[in-house]
Amino acid sequence: MFITFEGGEGSGKSTAIERLGERLSSLGKRVLITREPGGTPISEEIRSIILDRKNTGMDPWTEALLYAASRRQHVKEKIEPALKEGTIVISDRYVDSSLAYQGGARGLGIEKVLALNQFALDGVMPDLTIFFDLAPETGLGRIRKNQEREVNRLDLERISFHEKVRESFLVLKEMFPERIKVIDANLSPDKVFEEIWNLVSLLL
Amino acid sequence: MFITFEGGEGSGKSTAIERLGERLSSLGKRVLITREPGGTPISEEIRSIILDRKNTGMDPWTEALLYAASRRQHVKEKIEPALKEGTIVISDRYVDSSLAYQGGARGLGIEKVLALNQFALDGVMPDLTIFFDLAPETGLGRIRKNQEREVNRLDLERISFHEKVRESFLVLKEMFPERIKVIDANLSPDKVFEEIWNLVSLLL
Repeated sequence: MFITFEGGEGSGKSTAIERLGERLSSLGKRVLITREPGGTPISEEIRSIILDRKNTGMDPWTEALLYAASRRQHVKEKIEPALKEGTIVISDRYVDSSLAYQGGARGLGIEKVLALNQFALDGVMPDLTIFFDLAPETGLGRIRKNQEREVNRLDLERISFHEKVRESFLVLKEMFPERIKVIDANLSPDKVFEEIWNLVSLLL
Repeated sequence: MFITFEGGEGSGKSTAIERLGERLSSLGKRVLITREPGGTPISEEIRSIILDRKNTGMDPWTEALLYAASRRQHVKEKIEPALKEGTIVISDRYVDSSLAYQGGARGLGIEKVLALNQFALDGVMPDLTIFFDLAPETGLGRIRKNQEREVNRLDLERISFHEKVRESFLVLKEMFPERIKVIDANLSPDKVFEEIWNLVSLLL
């Protein structure tokens, strides 16, 4: 079983992922929690190029290709082997982030970015994708309060960019209604987790 | 005018490129000499991941995606703007390297790697590609004598890999007979340059 979490920064998905991992482990399931971009040493090196604040001149397709490269390594080295062993894999972001950020918000086109990602995915798609829906100002406000987290190149985009990301996720929900479920990230962490657990229970 | 040079390591293409640049400059032409993977700061960062000898577990498609990302940035930041200004651009390696190394020698398929590279090229294809044909043992023997050059991850591949690269370039020559010209790199540097100059003169 492969579950991915999507949503803007500060939407609370990291906390929810941790909690879901604990709950599944307590039921005796093997769980692998991972994240994008990153998840393997090569992918982390690629991540550092993507998020480096000095790389302001990065072309949008360069960015999309780097995310795809990072994802490919992550799929082949970590996600696919774990799924084959019967481990439940939970990833903080996956292909829908590319579709929303580069395809939608950067204007490359969702279909085109999906076509590019066929070279990365090798058919490995999530069984369930949970999108944390939240107004960008709220999410970014939460990040700014978090002193431990370093502000990266994508955080520095304007609010209008993050608005387009959010709209693109809602478009994706229409494109993949069976797979993508939307959660209102304004709800309390307990309420959010209850909804997540309802969705995951259906899969189990 | 956009000219690319291809061929295994140690084939003598760097020397020929330098000489061609000097000849064109002496005729009053504006010339830009560049190389792949690399050519821009972002592309050089990507290059260092690709060629890093510790990245032995890199998946072939990750490699192909990283080359494409590096190429995209190179095209948009450097090659395309120079061509628009009327500068003659000479690149040490370009898309045919991906087709031969990843498409042919790594077995991903030339057509598939070409399809992936459509996301990188944005239609910018060379007017002339000169392939330096040489037996891999000869080329690698020349490299080992060159103390200044550091041995990278691709140099460490077996001879059979470099044989496949060479065969793939000859397949590419059949696919693109108008664009790709083959030069016997066993000839003397003067003779090699004479042939190159004949080809470039036809374009001028």
